[in-house]
Amino acid sequence: MTEDNVVYIGNKPVMNYVLAVVTQFNSGASEVTIKARGRAISRAVDVAEVTKNRFMMDSKVKDIKIATERIASERGESNISTMEIVMIK
Amino acid sequence: MTEDNVVYIGNKPVMNYVLAVVTQFNSGASEVTIKARGRAISRAVDVAEVTKNRFMMDSKVKDIKIATERIASERGESNISTMEIVMIK
Repeated sequence: MTEDNVVYIGNKPVMNYVLAVVTQFNSGASEVTIKARGRAISRAVDVAEVTKNRFMMDSKVKDIKIATERIASERGESNISTMEIVMIK
Repeated sequence: MTEDNVVYIGNKPVMNYVLAVVTQFNSGASEVTIKARGRAISRAVDVAEVTKNRFMMDSKVKDIKIATERIASERGESNISTMEIVMIK
């Protein structure tokens, strides 16, 4: 789920990822990037908002980037949207 | 679905909203805002990416804002994430 200063959003509950972001900040990170693809993008926004509004009131969103990735699936190649939310403290 | 220069994302197919964005640009809008809440946020990113990559190559994302709204539901008040993607041409 996490790499240095990056939290990848999957299908787990929002709070799992909020905890991961808070843990990264508390371990000294000044910047944490939340990354998601496809339907997990909505959850990534939830994670950023819950982190900012309820756990780390001094954090804020520095940047949000969206893009498209090509992925291979059983039905051949297809496009999937991606999003990165960069949070700072 | 649309207000002046704003496209609200619901549960329809992505292409419905891409068409709405393209129509607004073709009717003279220089800026179109895509608005979504909750799970529709992922679809809003799809709409922006498909519009930019396949229909209006000269358009780009000017700004992305996320926030939280309080909404009343049968189970009382709850929070929902919101997103606004501002596209320009």
